[in-house]
Amino acid sequence: GDEQALIDLFEEMPAADIAGFIDENFEIYESLALMDKMSPEVQAEVFGYLRPNNQQVLASHMEVGLLAKLFRDMSSDERADVYALLDVKLQDALMRRLAKHDRDDLLRLSSYEEGTVGSVMTSDYAVIPASGTVEHALRRLRQTAPEKETIYQAYVIDNDYRLQGVVSLRDLITAAPHERIEDIMVTDLITLTPDMPQAESARIISRYDLIAIPVVSETGVLVGIVTFDDAMDVVEMEDTETMHKSATVGKIEGGLKDASVGMLYRKRINWLVLLVFANIFSGAGIAYFEDTISAYIALLFFLPLLIASGGNAGAQAATLMVRGIATGDVTRSDWFRMLGKELLVSLGLGLTMAVAIALVGSLRAGPDIMLVVALSMLAIVLVGSLIGVMLPFLLHRLNWDPATASAPLVTTIADATGVLIYFGMATSILGLPNI
Amino acid sequence: GDEQALIDLFEEMPAADIAGFIDENFEIYESLALMDKMSPEVQAEVFGYLRPNNQQVLASHMEVGLLAKLFRDMSSDERADVYALLDVKLQDALMRRLAKHDRDDLLRLSSYEEGTVGSVMTSDYAVIPASGTVEHALRRLRQTAPEKETIYQAYVIDNDYRLQGVVSLRDLITAAPHERIEDIMVTDLITLTPDMPQAESARIISRYDLIAIPVVSETGVLVGIVTFDDAMDVVEMEDTETMHKSATVGKIEGGLKDASVGMLYRKRINWLVLLVFANIFSGAGIAYFEDTISAYIALLFFLPLLIASGGNAGAQAATLMVRGIATGDVTRSDWFRMLGKELLVSLGLGLTMAVAIALVGSLRAGPDIMLVVALSMLAIVLVGSLIGVMLPFLLHRLNWDPATASAPLVTTIADATGVLIYFGMATSILGLPNI
Repeated sequence: GDEQALIDLFEEMPAADIAGFIDENFEIYESLALMDKMSPEVQAEVFGYLRPNNQQVLASHMEVGLLAKLFRDMSSDERADVYALLDVKLQDALMRRLAKHDRDDLLRLSSYEEGTVGSVMTSDYAVIPASGTVEHALRRLRQTAPEKETIYQAYVIDNDYRLQGVVSLRDLITAAPHERIEDIMVTDLITLTPDMPQAESARIISRYDLIAIPVVSETGVLVGIVTFDDAMDVVEMEDTETMHKSATVGKIEGGLKDASVGMLYRKRINWLVLLVFANIFSGAGIAYFEDTISAYIALLFFLPLLIASGGNAGAQAATLMVRGIATGDVTRSDWFRMLGKELLVSLGLGLTMAVAIALVGSLRAGPDIMLVVALSMLAIVLVGSLIGVMLPFLLHRLNWDPATASAPLVTTIADATGVLIYFGMATSILGLPNI
Repeated sequence: GDEQALIDLFEEMPAADIAGFIDENFEIYESLALMDKMSPEVQAEVFGYLRPNNQQVLASHMEVGLLAKLFRDMSSDERADVYALLDVKLQDALMRRLAKHDRDDLLRLSSYEEGTVGSVMTSDYAVIPASGTVEHALRRLRQTAPEKETIYQAYVIDNDYRLQGVVSLRDLITAAPHERIEDIMVTDLITLTPDMPQAESARIISRYDLIAIPVVSETGVLVGIVTFDDAMDVVEMEDTETMHKSATVGKIEGGLKDASVGMLYRKRINWLVLLVFANIFSGAGIAYFEDTISAYIALLFFLPLLIASGGNAGAQAATLMVRGIATGDVTRSDWFRMLGKELLVSLGLGLTMAVAIALVGSLRAGPDIMLVVALSMLAIVLVGSLIGVMLPFLLHRLNWDPATASAPLVTTIADATGVLIYFGMATSILGLPNI
């Protein structure tokens, strides 16, 4: 009754939505029962859209024979991803049930390291020979269409499976039926290699507006393709990683919701402890100026807002640079120009903030202290901003990920310099009373 | 000589690379001369890939008749973007040179507000009637292919241009030639409306792995499509905006490199000044405990690392939540579970950091002060983390963008509570000597 109503409802729904529904209401045995009612193709598609955590649980509760059947119907890149989630015993049992060509394909795709082009590519692409005609190619695409991830790009290979060219279905249907493929194929190819970082596939697909991009080995043999939809997933993953990194959080596998307490702890603790020790420099700066502070205890009131301002302006500058470098908007050769621009911008920011604090602070402290506070504000904002611009470029030049120049790191450095600037200036302008 | 060599080189290059070359070596008159040597189609394609700033400069230096010719060959969404960059006088002069259907199309597409689906959609899509056959549809697609952004999805409309269904080219070439379109078209459609936020188009294209998605008016009339490549650009723009927002930087139009000093100043100053005043709370907290601080000046050494730790842990938690909400990984109903998990994680983080600082700090201060510091660390990290989890959910519930719960805001709130916790605990454990 109730279950049948769901099955009827599912018939009208896209696979992604069915998977979303199962994810939201996940119970192992109910999900297995629901999946069991679907056609093998729908089952395979829905399974591919489930959250990794739920894929893993369902796969381990499935009869191995059924799992092998599911694997046969799944796209090659998705089943390789699921395979990687299974424990070794289940992997072995599964492998024994697969046909040789599925087994070889799965082994090959799972052998690429995570984060590489090889780990996101699929082997469900359409190939055609260079010597055939347009008519022949179209017939072939028609026949193989159901198994292929895309037939909108057909890959032209020679007898050794080396990539010779690419023909789009658009070109095929507008060409005359008797034309030869080698005469209409595109040979100036943009290709990837499987060991490139996966972000590269997304960058190139986005730059050239491609539906798919071929992946070739060093000897020019076609080994897979990356499609635009996988590239979009890569962009989401990479941007998530960058945003987490910018707050000193390490890479979290498989989504925040499924992350265990232990994993979250491990991904967060290292930088936090490191920053505790880095902040000792600020403390040491304060301790060094203890005499000044004891003499002018009113200075402390302005300490938090001054050091925070340097960190905030620095985090702004660093974030602009990190993202600019990541999108290719800013390159290494721009660093001098960006530094000059930041000098002007931060001068404006620092002056505005100095005036703002001088107006409000004069209600609380005398003109000599306000002079110290205003001058410090200007200097601290300038220095913080310049650190924010330079650190990402420096990391980029050292071939580190500029995203490591995260807000917390810039803030910590800006804090320590802020303490020195503020109390240094106070000591020299106000003097030490007991000397 | 030199120029001809470049033109020859360009013939082998994708349009995106030619545009990249011109952008890198931009000089108005040289760029105009180079463009002049290309075929009209290549010219239009290259122009579409140039940086907005350079498009604007070139367009204003072009003879209006030539610009109108260029516009005729450009895709409808790209020319609407360029049109929006021109000054009103040039817009008028250009309009007068365009054919009526181009003029209407341009006016319509430019009328949608920036950031909406309407502003990124294109009108270069292929339509077919429901009553025709597969053979008829294929013939039509073949003829109109050169002008369309994609022919891999064909849109089935009635006489009033209302969207009836969609047929993919994949389905067309695998169907029998005499089959009727209405029998093979998909009618359970996922559609957008032009006033939706543009991010929605990217979210849906990515979720359902679509090549393009139709945009319909309230009355069901087809008004445009959004293609996957435009959706990828939307993702990049949106993620850039979110990252900037997370460092309290406002929306920057047209890339960092082209942003003027004045614009950068305006996009950064508001939050910086706001945060200066917010940090007065921390200063007030310090001032309130002046007696405690004067009595135990050694406490100041640990102040920066304690308040920074609360901010850093809070920024981690906030960033995880903000991104989780943005990707749909975490929903409103998860907030209680996330809070519980964060309580456990931050307990672990706080304990580790308390032990770390107790070990190192005992070289510098006595056991009573170290007890205060260690207990404060635990409490500050707990409170900072919980603020980091709750603020994004709160903003989300208020229908504000959770990204506003930026690291600087969380840090500022955590700083103020950190000051109160630390000196409050010190006063109650160490006591005030002169009372």
